Amino acid sequence: MTPTTTPTTSTVTTGPIDSSSKQYLPVPGHEGMRVPVRRVHLSNGEHLDLYDTSGPYTDASATIDVEAGLPRTRDSWQRPEPVDGASTQLAWARAGIITPEMAYVAAREGFDPEVVRAEVAAGRAVIPANHLHPESEPMIIGKAFAVKINANIGNSAVTSSVAEEVEKMVWAARWGADTLMDLSTGKNIHLTREWIMRNSPIPVGTVPIYQALEKVKGDPAELTWEIYRDTIIEQCEQGVDYMTVHAGVLLRYVPLTAKRVTGIVSRGGSIMAAWCLAHHRENFLYTHFEELCDILRRYDVTFSLGDGLRPGSIADANDEAQFAELRTLGELTKIAKSRGVQVMIEGPGHVPMHKIAENVRLEEELCEEAPFYTLGPLATDIAPAYDHITSAIGAAMIAQAGTAMLCYVTPKEHLGLPNRDDVKTGVITYKIAAHSADLAKGHPRAQERDDALSRARFEFRWNDQFALSLDPDTAREYHDETLPADAAKTAHFCSMCGPKFCSMRISADVRAYAEENGLTSVEAIEAGMAEKSEEFQQQGGKVYLPVTPV
Amino acid sequence: MTPTTTPTTSTVTTGPIDSSSKQYLPVPGHEGMRVPVRRVHLSNGEHLDLYDTSGPYTDASATIDVEAGLPRTRDSWQRPEPVDGASTQLAWARAGIITPEMAYVAAREGFDPEVVRAEVAAGRAVIPANHLHPESEPMIIGKAFAVKINANIGNSAVTSSVAEEVEKMVWAARWGADTLMDLSTGKNIHLTREWIMRNSPIPVGTVPIYQALEKVKGDPAELTWEIYRDTIIEQCEQGVDYMTVHAGVLLRYVPLTAKRVTGIVSRGGSIMAAWCLAHHRENFLYTHFEELCDILRRYDVTFSLGDGLRPGSIADANDEAQFAELRTLGELTKIAKSRGVQVMIEGPGHVPMHKIAENVRLEEELCEEAPFYTLGPLATDIAPAYDHITSAIGAAMIAQAGTAMLCYVTPKEHLGLPNRDDVKTGVITYKIAAHSADLAKGHPRAQERDDALSRARFEFRWNDQFALSLDPDTAREYHDETLPADAAKTAHFCSMCGPKFCSMRISADVRAYAEENGLTSVEAIEAGMAEKSEEFQQQGGKVYLPVTPV
Repeated sequence: MTPTTTPTTSTVTTGPIDSSSKQYLPVPGHEGMRVPVRRVHLSNGEHLDLYDTSGPYTDASATIDVEAGLPRTRDSWQRPEPVDGASTQLAWARAGIITPEMAYVAAREGFDPEVVRAEVAAGRAVIPANHLHPESEPMIIGKAFAVKINANIGNSAVTSSVAEEVEKMVWAARWGADTLMDLSTGKNIHLTREWIMRNSPIPVGTVPIYQALEKVKGDPAELTWEIYRDTIIEQCEQGVDYMTVHAGVLLRYVPLTAKRVTGIVSRGGSIMAAWCLAHHRENFLYTHFEELCDILRRYDVTFSLGDGLRPGSIADANDEAQFAELRTLGELTKIAKSRGVQVMIEGPGHVPMHKIAENVRLEEELCEEAPFYTLGPLATDIAPAYDHITSAIGAAMIAQAGTAMLCYVTPKEHLGLPNRDDVKTGVITYKIAAHSADLAKGHPRAQERDDALSRARFEFRWNDQFALSLDPDTAREYHDETLPADAAKTAHFCSMCGPKFCSMRISADVRAYAEENGLTSVEAIEAGMAEKSEEFQQQGGKVYLPVTPV
Repeated sequence: MTPTTTPTTSTVTTGPIDSSSKQYLPVPGHEGMRVPVRRVHLSNGEHLDLYDTSGPYTDASATIDVEAGLPRTRDSWQRPEPVDGASTQLAWARAGIITPEMAYVAAREGFDPEVVRAEVAAGRAVIPANHLHPESEPMIIGKAFAVKINANIGNSAVTSSVAEEVEKMVWAARWGADTLMDLSTGKNIHLTREWIMRNSPIPVGTVPIYQALEKVKGDPAELTWEIYRDTIIEQCEQGVDYMTVHAGVLLRYVPLTAKRVTGIVSRGGSIMAAWCLAHHRENFLYTHFEELCDILRRYDVTFSLGDGLRPGSIADANDEAQFAELRTLGELTKIAKSRGVQVMIEGPGHVPMHKIAENVRLEEELCEEAPFYTLGPLATDIAPAYDHITSAIGAAMIAQAGTAMLCYVTPKEHLGLPNRDDVKTGVITYKIAAHSADLAKGHPRAQERDDALSRARFEFRWNDQFALSLDPDTAREYHDETLPADAAKTAHFCSMCGPKFCSMRISADVRAYAEENGLTSVEAIEAGMAEKSEEFQQQGGKVYLPVTPV
């Protein structure tokens, strides 16, 4: 499993994020185990610790060697004995065992480990952690926890290289991607994935049918269960943490897509539909599903049951094809869980706002609340080049409704492959959607960051405002475009209004004045203090201090 | 009212948008009146007409002369006689009169003119159309109609010039801004506005307190009713169509902001709060509100009752200060309407998703469903540099709940003044939010565009996909980054997956195959046609045609 060809360059982005340092917090009851946080250091001496997906790359004291890979930390953790032949988080959770991974994610999210265990046992949460990906920092996906985001990368037949993909993974994790899907379809699929696995601190997912199709030179009709099975095993052995399996695309559902505006838009879905039609037989992923379960269980690989018939346009949302497949995913969920395999369910796609909640409701009903993992959804079709935004609207809403993980969409969706900048834009945009949902759901830690940033904003602590933001570099750059001087970083106004019109300034002065004069209640004000007014006028009649424009 | 100083350059952006031409549609019963549409010409010979805010600037046959201003089209329209001394759309609507402006917006939106009249009469919609802005193309703001967006521009003491602001107006209208607010606070406020008014095809709003404050050299305590009144009259005379008036910031509400995380963040709100505290007297906009009504009525200027105490952070959302002011805005709404003046109500700000709907519910209850006009709201505080996105999430949701117009937010919000690119990004982002809400509300014309674009996408009509998108130029540019050749515009695959993996291709082939073989129902499929399978294999076992990679 050692990579045999090095990427063309092994340079990846390292170093801490603006005003932050990597810190590690202990895990109660697990000596030597520690969870990473990004500690933001504020100018007033305070700090705020943030959930940190970036791995050792942002640790100033870490030595990064892409060719050696990351430390295999999880190898040293005590793995519990199998339960009824299953060594999966689900089996252990059901047996009442709190695994090291559960303790880790509990500490990472600020939850009681018993809550983590119970959610995993119920199948409402998954911890995608292949035994053979010991470099990963465990994380949990479930609606009781912070909403997670996934970034897709992957070379295609048309473009990109191995080195680029490794850097995209590091880059995505740096800005907040909780998991990564490697959707490579071109040459070097195996090799690209090997480099990513050995260097990824976040769980990695794949869609194995892509590689299987490469093996039959791209002809879906030539696919067989055996080729697919061997591909799955190959990827399990590499350490892939979760796999998209389009086992719900049944032969009888394919005609339901014929009258759609955009037919079948899932690659995996279209491949399986083509296979079903070509052979007039049932989807081999469906007919061999139990065998699949047994393979994934061996490694504790998590199913991500793909929505091969998801809508590709507003017109096709929530239609018969989509929901017929969802019902089948519900059946498969029960089978997977009965065999001890963790499961999440993939969701749409393109859905107008008023049809979003129904997707979550049905998924929860049909799939026993297995974590929902949705692509957007895009709330309109009319904005190619801005589909990170059309989909962030849908993503925030579907996450508020209960979706556990959001698959990002970049500005290049429908148009081309994302470059490094697009990956960052996609990740930051989806952090916004996920965090907005955390706030709406009342996640216990979510609002701390908003409040800290808003206090910094109100007190004109510009550097703190940048440091606390999702993208400090861009926030600073935008500020500097108008007011580049360093002095502007401490100015008690900003470039939008200039010194005279600054509402924040006036407001701070109003507050100080009101407090000094005991005007802190409606009653005090209503007592009507002409006296105060006179005194104020004598002071010069100004509620703000003169400042020198920068 | 002729501008006396020309902008440093009079160049503004002209010419049609990609693959489109300006067309004019007749207005039934109004000979010579015509409403503009952007006609998108598709490669299959079809076309789609879109609502068009861009004015004559996108008409290839129009002669644009910024120094002369736009044609004063509305001057030739027959204005009805005053009703009880009022010459306003509200007064006429109540009297059962369908004005030329009502007929115009009805044709523009595809509604019956009587519906327009009834909505205006009820105060549920406004048509901001100052008699002295005859260059404007009337539009309607109300929840029964398409959701509108406003773009803010304006120079400040720190930066920008007159010419830049005129171009920003033209540019904002080009990409879809329905109204414009000129928030200039620096030098040349009057002159900048004059240039904008005479060249703006969209209604223009202002916040007159900014100019009044300039007149007293920036000291809020020096403001007087008389100075403010004269400023209002000056702006009414220039043709300003709607004005933000912070008459709801009452003395007794000011202390309610003292314990907030971010105090008062509205500039106008903070100015009035400062004035109230300085004098210990009630807000002169409140005490002179009836006189204000009488001035605005003379010109048919619409009130935009400002939310001076709107929350500036998630922590402050839906608090006592905010809702106390909203109750006062409800009182003022009744007074304005009783005097025949059109009214809309401004709304927040920063609001987490779960608190958004309550804002609309309360506004409708307290303000008799006067059109709600909100700034975002931002669904989280933590993403400066991406606040167009944080706010698009809130904007889409609040519009779905009933907000009639959305004030855009640009990526520079909280950081600096928007440049031309930022204006475009803000406008496009808000068109996404507004259109998503139109879809969710079932606006009769909204989905046509999504369906047309999705069909183009499915059929690989790349140029049509670009032409139908909100920003054809950027969509094309992104596509060309990966596949620049002209041939790629007709390729039956795209750069994301390459030819072998294209789900759209496979899906189209699945459809064709299913139809050819009568497999268009579940029954036909379930009849289990081994025969078909065999035949298919004989054809070569491929469900897609070979293509030559570009």
